[in-house]
Amino acid sequence: MASKQRIMEAAVRLFAANGYHGTGVEELSSAVNLGKGALYHHIGSKEALLFEICHTRMADLVTQAGRVQAMDVNWQDKFRLMMRMALRDIADHPLEWTVAFQEFNALTGQRRAVVQEARDRYEHIVAEVLHAGAGAGEFHSLHPLVTKGVLGMYNYSYAWIRSDGGKSPEDIADLFTDTLLEGISERG
Amino acid sequence: MASKQRIMEAAVRLFAANGYHGTGVEELSSAVNLGKGALYHHIGSKEALLFEICHTRMADLVTQAGRVQAMDVNWQDKFRLMMRMALRDIADHPLEWTVAFQEFNALTGQRRAVVQEARDRYEHIVAEVLHAGAGAGEFHSLHPLVTKGVLGMYNYSYAWIRSDGGKSPEDIADLFTDTLLEGISERG
Repeated sequence: MASKQRIMEAAVRLFAANGYHGTGVEELSSAVNLGKGALYHHIGSKEALLFEICHTRMADLVTQAGRVQAMDVNWQDKFRLMMRMALRDIADHPLEWTVAFQEFNALTGQRRAVVQEARDRYEHIVAEVLHAGAGAGEFHSLHPLVTKGVLGMYNYSYAWIRSDGGKSPEDIADLFTDTLLEGISERG
Repeated sequence: MASKQRIMEAAVRLFAANGYHGTGVEELSSAVNLGKGALYHHIGSKEALLFEICHTRMADLVTQAGRVQAMDVNWQDKFRLMMRMALRDIADHPLEWTVAFQEFNALTGQRRAVVQEARDRYEHIVAEVLHAGAGAGEFHSLHPLVTKGVLGMYNYSYAWIRSDGGKSPEDIADLFTDTLLEGISERG
């Protein structure tokens, strides 16, 4: 495996287990059997590594969401497909998402701004689907804060979802989506 | 302020900002102007501090949820009151909850087991309300995994909710609860 790839995987593992601030460059370099000089040659800095992890996942999610957004299906299906895609990504990359959600605050300056922008972009795409879907008469008209609740419902799964669990990520996403669409209240 | 209290507040601030593993005992002791000896006298160990933070919030949430559980109201109202209570607690203690959610994995052995038990207990209470409410004809019969989605919806608010925001935590909880009860799908 290429050095860069090996370093990324070790960083994901160490950051997820011990946190960004709790992972020393020494630990990283010994995990991949490289001297500190060689390590810095490949990664630039520890923060650049954290940025790479957070940004790769977020940017990928935005790309996939954009693909769904452009599909020729109704808004409810668009929402459903987007959430399936999100849970599949989280289940396939649970450690990366643990780092992306839990260590984001350790990013600074431009790196933080770029990842924040991708997070905002994703939230905006989901909000747009809910908003446009309401305009088309497929969803109730929803308060903007509802988007944050919806994102929490699906995204917090990074803490417990695994792709090898009993239910597939897509089935879990559909379970949540059906719950959200139909509501939990039993009506007469 | 008593030393123990000052130490707790500094630990919450430092753990939330730099992570548990990223916070040194030296940093803690200089933040509260105590020698390492005096610090250890008050707290025992850094992990004991983390335990105290996580356990206080979780145990408190369980206590409050138990109080709501015992109320003489219907299941939908019980659920509504429980979620109001949860969002109020999260908004009043955002840094403590950041630590409790993000640094929980740093706990080991018995300390971890005790906090995990409180987490499970809270999840169980919410699951029970949904289950019993379904039995009483107030909720649809829900797959057990839905509880996890519901918890994510409200709990992930630690990342953005503040008690001094435009909407009160109780109003935000009600917004989410109304969404969840009625569903987002526009029917006929």
